[in-house]
Amino acid sequence: MAQRHLDPTGPPAGPSPAPGSGRAGGAPTGDALADYLRAQATEFLRALRLHRETGGSSNGTGAGGPEDPVDAARALRRAVRRISGSLHTFRPLLDADWSESVRPELAWLSGTLAMEHAYAARLERLLLALHRLSGAVFPAQAVGASPAAASAVSVRAAGAGRTGTAEPGGLPAAAPAPDRGNLTVGAAKAGALLERQLTLARTRAHSTALQALGSSRFHAVADTVALLASDVPLAPTATTTGLHPLATAARERLTDAVTALPLITAGHPYNAEALIHGLSPDPAPHPQDAPWHQVRLLLRLHRYAREVLDGTDAPVDVRLLAAGQALDRHRDASEAAAAAAQAARTPRIAPATAYALGVLHADQRHEVEAARFAFQQSWQKQAVGTP
Amino acid sequence: MAQRHLDPTGPPAGPSPAPGSGRAGGAPTGDALADYLRAQATEFLRALRLHRETGGSSNGTGAGGPEDPVDAARALRRAVRRISGSLHTFRPLLDADWSESVRPELAWLSGTLAMEHAYAARLERLLLALHRLSGAVFPAQAVGASPAAASAVSVRAAGAGRTGTAEPGGLPAAAPAPDRGNLTVGAAKAGALLERQLTLARTRAHSTALQALGSSRFHAVADTVALLASDVPLAPTATTTGLHPLATAARERLTDAVTALPLITAGHPYNAEALIHGLSPDPAPHPQDAPWHQVRLLLRLHRYAREVLDGTDAPVDVRLLAAGQALDRHRDASEAAAAAAQAARTPRIAPATAYALGVLHADQRHEVEAARFAFQQSWQKQAVGTP
Repeated sequence: MAQRHLDPTGPPAGPSPAPGSGRAGGAPTGDALADYLRAQATEFLRALRLHRETGGSSNGTGAGGPEDPVDAARALRRAVRRISGSLHTFRPLLDADWSESVRPELAWLSGTLAMEHAYAARLERLLLALHRLSGAVFPAQAVGASPAAASAVSVRAAGAGRTGTAEPGGLPAAAPAPDRGNLTVGAAKAGALLERQLTLARTRAHSTALQALGSSRFHAVADTVALLASDVPLAPTATTTGLHPLATAARERLTDAVTALPLITAGHPYNAEALIHGLSPDPAPHPQDAPWHQVRLLLRLHRYAREVLDGTDAPVDVRLLAAGQALDRHRDASEAAAAAAQAARTPRIAPATAYALGVLHADQRHEVEAARFAFQQSWQKQAVGTP
Repeated sequence: MAQRHLDPTGPPAGPSPAPGSGRAGGAPTGDALADYLRAQATEFLRALRLHRETGGSSNGTGAGGPEDPVDAARALRRAVRRISGSLHTFRPLLDADWSESVRPELAWLSGTLAMEHAYAARLERLLLALHRLSGAVFPAQAVGASPAAASAVSVRAAGAGRTGTAEPGGLPAAAPAPDRGNLTVGAAKAGALLERQLTLARTRAHSTALQALGSSRFHAVADTVALLASDVPLAPTATTTGLHPLATAARERLTDAVTALPLITAGHPYNAEALIHGLSPDPAPHPQDAPWHQVRLLLRLHRYAREVLDGTDAPVDVRLLAAGQALDRHRDASEAAAAAAQAARTPRIAPATAYALGVLHADQRHEVEAARFAFQQSWQKQAVGTP
């Protein structure tokens, strides 16, 4: 259990798959996949029920127990990602038509549910960075709080007939919104500008999520998952087909993508690569980040494939987790840097505001570089287990 | 000889001190100090003569042989630093009145001669960084050129009755001024602003240096050093007093100051300490840099003390050199970051200019952090030799 708490997405609250027939008599087959999918579908339904029960009574702290709607939303996203990932990795073992029809719907739901959280976490990251850059001192727990824990995602009343308001709550009390008392004018204005822009984006994402959760499209997904909790549409040969080759293929896609990363450069601290296009005329997101984002997704698929094979009770490889957390940080910093650059393009801002946003952008690009270094360090120690 | 070329200040072009009586019969005494001071005074006079001979014919390339006025100016500064440092470290061995009167004059001369070079190097560093941040590709030799090699210091006609013009040359051909063709508007404007401000500062420093070298104050210093080349005013007990305790004291001042540095933090890559006051309301230079600047000076004094004891022909400790180069880089990046922040306070600049200057400031503050890491790495390997 001690290892379980290292999982950045939180300990799984749902029932683990029973050691079923899939793993009982040798190499795991489609039965193990069915066990896993049933367990994740059950978890999805549990999270959805919790969400309905608690959606209207959010205290906005994000620090509650399993009754917290933030936790419920996170658990929903978590289950959707796992179902979606398993459908991808073990595609040949599943009914092809069913699989092809449900995967885009899960991707839509996962993306929609993630946006409000992402904007909230991005704003928090940028405001904390502004304070750090201003030499302000924070309580350690606020600085150390993970964006996930600080999220105020509150997709309320999902499918429960209630409609929540479109006003997202403030930053949760567990990570207090830093006051701007000791910021310079430029930093304070930059913070206010980012808060305005990202809160607007978050409000829109909140409304979109609410609409999604009340839509017939969502109800169709929920129905599909409810069916999945009892009956997994396996392909005819699935119960006699081993999972190992497909899991191995997922692992190889990961290791191939990692091999293509510039890890030697990343392993040299302060290589100054991440900021190299910091003032490029190209307004698009840094193209150098894309392969890292891709590895992040492949690493997640590999982790889920291992869960299918080993069961969710198996100890989580902490080095794999560390590598994944580094890539999460890479993604978050990359997007935060882009948000700062984007804010700097707002017409008629003061030069002091623009200057602060420039410092902030560069700071987050160095966070990107630091995350690559951290990934390289953890990967070096990492022996990717054979599934 | 191979090791000598690693000296960042260039190989000493003057005569080495003969293995004199100071080192012949055991532990070195004041005689060794006298040998060293005579040699450095001779080098000063040689550099000054070269400067007079070549001062009017500078081709501004900085790439010439010993006839180059840039090299001559560098050799002048080099000799002045060594004389001044030795007077400091071995003060009790020298005539007190003479020593007290000449040291401030040497400090004045050293400071005055260094300014034009510093502004030129700072501008070059910032323009190269702007191009790197814009994703521009440079010829490796231009990027790798040390600021010292690229300096266009040309304190001409020193003491030769000729007065040079107050117009400093352009950046030397060896490190071509990067064109601004592929910069964004913000980066280009930031570059133009920095070029204007730092070229103005450099022009003023050039004029000041010219005035200094034509002044009676300078002629008095030159006369003092000319006397030093033949007659070193030692204290009465100097020839029977060992140098080791004073050199050891210099080493201990260094190691004590290093011990007080935050080396554990500096040894963790991407600790994000250097930028922590990047948006602080305090416009003063980063106070966190001061202890590092102090160690830089103490390291130099330690190196010069070793030269006095071991002779300038002794192999230079490459790790000591690496540590010193890291601290030079620290100082240069610290001052470049301050120049970018200062430029951002220019009234009525465009937001895009301010943004680029903010990115540039943060970039140089990360250079500061990288230099601290490099120092920590070289110091870890460094066993400071007992003199």
